[in-house]
Amino acid sequence: MALHLLTPTHLHHPSSPLPRRRAAASATATLAHPLRAHPRLRLRLATAASSPRTGPRRAGMSAIRSSLIDPDGGALVDLVAPPGRRAALRAEAEALPRVRLAAVDVEWAHVLAEGWASPLRGFMREHEYLQCLHFNSLRLPSGGLANMSLPIVLAVDDAAKDRVGAAPDVALAGPDGELLAVLRSVEIYPHNKEERIARTWGTTAPGLPYVDEAITPAGNWLIGGDLEVLQPIKYNDGLDHYRLSPQQLRDEFDKRGADAVFAFQLRNPVHNGHALLMNDTRRRLLEMGFKNPILLLHPLGGFTKADDVPLPVRMEQHSKVLEDGVLDPETTIVSIFPSPMHYAGPTEVQWHAKARINAGANFYIVGRDPAGMGHPTEKRDLYNPDHGKKVLSMAPGLEKLNILPFKVAAYDTVAKKMAFFEPSRSQDFLFISGTKMRTFAKTGENPPDGFMCPGGWKVLVDYYNSLQTEGATTPATATV
Amino acid sequence: MALHLLTPTHLHHPSSPLPRRRAAASATATLAHPLRAHPRLRLRLATAASSPRTGPRRAGMSAIRSSLIDPDGGALVDLVAPPGRRAALRAEAEALPRVRLAAVDVEWAHVLAEGWASPLRGFMREHEYLQCLHFNSLRLPSGGLANMSLPIVLAVDDAAKDRVGAAPDVALAGPDGELLAVLRSVEIYPHNKEERIARTWGTTAPGLPYVDEAITPAGNWLIGGDLEVLQPIKYNDGLDHYRLSPQQLRDEFDKRGADAVFAFQLRNPVHNGHALLMNDTRRRLLEMGFKNPILLLHPLGGFTKADDVPLPVRMEQHSKVLEDGVLDPETTIVSIFPSPMHYAGPTEVQWHAKARINAGANFYIVGRDPAGMGHPTEKRDLYNPDHGKKVLSMAPGLEKLNILPFKVAAYDTVAKKMAFFEPSRSQDFLFISGTKMRTFAKTGENPPDGFMCPGGWKVLVDYYNSLQTEGATTPATATV
Repeated sequence: MALHLLTPTHLHHPSSPLPRRRAAASATATLAHPLRAHPRLRLRLATAASSPRTGPRRAGMSAIRSSLIDPDGGALVDLVAPPGRRAALRAEAEALPRVRLAAVDVEWAHVLAEGWASPLRGFMREHEYLQCLHFNSLRLPSGGLANMSLPIVLAVDDAAKDRVGAAPDVALAGPDGELLAVLRSVEIYPHNKEERIARTWGTTAPGLPYVDEAITPAGNWLIGGDLEVLQPIKYNDGLDHYRLSPQQLRDEFDKRGADAVFAFQLRNPVHNGHALLMNDTRRRLLEMGFKNPILLLHPLGGFTKADDVPLPVRMEQHSKVLEDGVLDPETTIVSIFPSPMHYAGPTEVQWHAKARINAGANFYIVGRDPAGMGHPTEKRDLYNPDHGKKVLSMAPGLEKLNILPFKVAAYDTVAKKMAFFEPSRSQDFLFISGTKMRTFAKTGENPPDGFMCPGGWKVLVDYYNSLQTEGATTPATATV
Repeated sequence: MALHLLTPTHLHHPSSPLPRRRAAASATATLAHPLRAHPRLRLRLATAASSPRTGPRRAGMSAIRSSLIDPDGGALVDLVAPPGRRAALRAEAEALPRVRLAAVDVEWAHVLAEGWASPLRGFMREHEYLQCLHFNSLRLPSGGLANMSLPIVLAVDDAAKDRVGAAPDVALAGPDGELLAVLRSVEIYPHNKEERIARTWGTTAPGLPYVDEAITPAGNWLIGGDLEVLQPIKYNDGLDHYRLSPQQLRDEFDKRGADAVFAFQLRNPVHNGHALLMNDTRRRLLEMGFKNPILLLHPLGGFTKADDVPLPVRMEQHSKVLEDGVLDPETTIVSIFPSPMHYAGPTEVQWHAKARINAGANFYIVGRDPAGMGHPTEKRDLYNPDHGKKVLSMAPGLEKLNILPFKVAAYDTVAKKMAFFEPSRSQDFLFISGTKMRTFAKTGENPPDGFMCPGGWKVLVDYYNSLQTEGATTPATATV
């Protein structure tokens, strides 16, 4: 079975595709009680069924719009210099004071350049940073708010600050020194790391992966400005063809004639519980009257913590899931979301949703404990697992997005498949945590039949086998 | 000279009132650069000059409105049971499970009961708490946002939670056990102290006064619900007549025919730099065309840290400032703001401004480092001193308030008076910190002539003398 789009050339075709599992479980979009009466949510439900922007009753599908949902600020930001301008821009950049980016900064430059953070046009200046930290949103010129929950900032040290001096514009270079971009009309302001961490994560406990990677070692200043990128940012890792920009995704949804796009953010392998949820969402959208709902299966491609499964392995696993027929390639687009991961729970899930608005998704599936992890120093979840969906449902600037919370899926030992958890027969369900899944894969033990398609599972087993062969790089600990 | 309103009966009349100092310095309302071009701020400036709600050009002052500015949510919340209902409510409360409040909880019940936190109708339920922590605002039924930056929550311990069980309503009792209120349709949810502290203060460092007073010793659950107070909350400390509710303040502004009300939040004695600022603000409002701007001098009356000057001393000092003619009693209302103090800088200043909207103030003076203090464990300010006014100027739900940032005042050693600081002759200016002021007062040394009116200064000297006589209660340390 071929993938319609973005099929890696090195796919392994499975010998025994699993039958598709379409669940009969109901009401994945049920909202928590205190939110149900909320006027915005009533609006959302109405929007799903009948809005002129998203509803299937309009226009009889004959005039599919480039946008099922408008980008934040009304237009997609595109900060990549057009080809005719690149030589002059490079020449200009050569003469400017230079700031060296870390790998994670390059990922953010990529995010900004393609407009995932629209209407943001560059690394945040202080007034944007403060709005982000305090309000999780940015004021638009119209007076409305765009959601913006994670600071997208560029840290520089004292030496770089001195080098920039009073220059209005600076050149940005990658970790290897190659020129990447120009940052214009820059503003340099203090980087209060403690405050940034406390307000973003709701904790300052040591051991937060993004903090250790990108904040603690970074400089004590932030530099904001308008970004202009010399050329599209590529990683040359064999996966660039998966990295569709928001505009490319919107074009693809148009090409497929989508009348609803539902996004699924993930940073883990897809098991059949995820698939159950995605297929059930599609079923519900069809029931609502949509004729051609398209799934955007959208794995995060930037920085992740050491014990997460690496991107290339995940992409291979996702391909198997489509090959095995667990998800339908006809109605699924697999693409990479280039953002780094903060593991900042309710704060970060807003970013994950907001960026998908810009990519043209008008439905967003939110799971239990999105962007969560274990507390770095205490034996508990860092976030209340319900807060992600609650915060997301109330977030300023996300009113136009249809948010679909889902019920927990677990392994049903009676039906011998992944199913929506039923509290009335909780003893029948088996929760397979990430840690347990990794243990299965590492030890070569098979998970319960129906947990994951065989092709996808083999990818993971092969990965962990390769780690054990290499020996040195196996992560020492695994969070839940 | 008699005060027009709220004159305590024990006023000491000064022998030598200071001449009023009206400063010639300009532009106290100048905005920081990145904010100047902001559309909301342009709107504000326009509002100040010509809006039909606040502008003097309307109606020729003949039809003064009860509201120069609408309360948040459109109507002032009043949660005090009417007299005819109190006996029945008390009887009902007697039969309910009982929760005991700490002193600071009573202050919050007072704040809620009088509508300072309109549209909030009781201690926050979880959906309100989450919006407050993440967005510093609450969604209104209209779809708009009301500002709400500090969590107004009631913590209970495991025993109280068990006692409440599944009861829908509970009685609230004061620290001495007297019944105060009923909380209805309650919701109990986890009190994650670390997250609350980190998101409210931007630090989790030990030694935050409100945290030590009201969070660390509090229970691990929060109980939210609709509040109904048995009768107006009084403190019987000789200052209750200063505690005007938002409705009483609005009525007083009407009675005086105010066409602009500018609020000044403070928790410290008034020196002549403060007075310079307030008088300069009045001058500017008159220049804008307002005929009768009224100053709301609004000292905070709830919990403050141990080394702040206690409320009764401050009230006496403020009275002297009016008696000495430093502020004009004809155009000034002195009243107590019943809120406890968080010392949470940019987060708290929003609360201070929002509450004054509900009290009818349409102009708000914001100082350097509002609600700030020294970092509890590092030798620096906890907050960037400019962030308070920046955050306030961008805060959701405060668009209708005219925010007036002010320049720093210091002692001008040439003119021998408090004056707006001029960087070009910085050597002429002397900054008299709170610590230095307290040292003067404690040692009996006089501050420079013109720093504070003699009557007000004597109140402070007497206070510190009384502390030294008592010996034991002198605070050991003083923050800047």
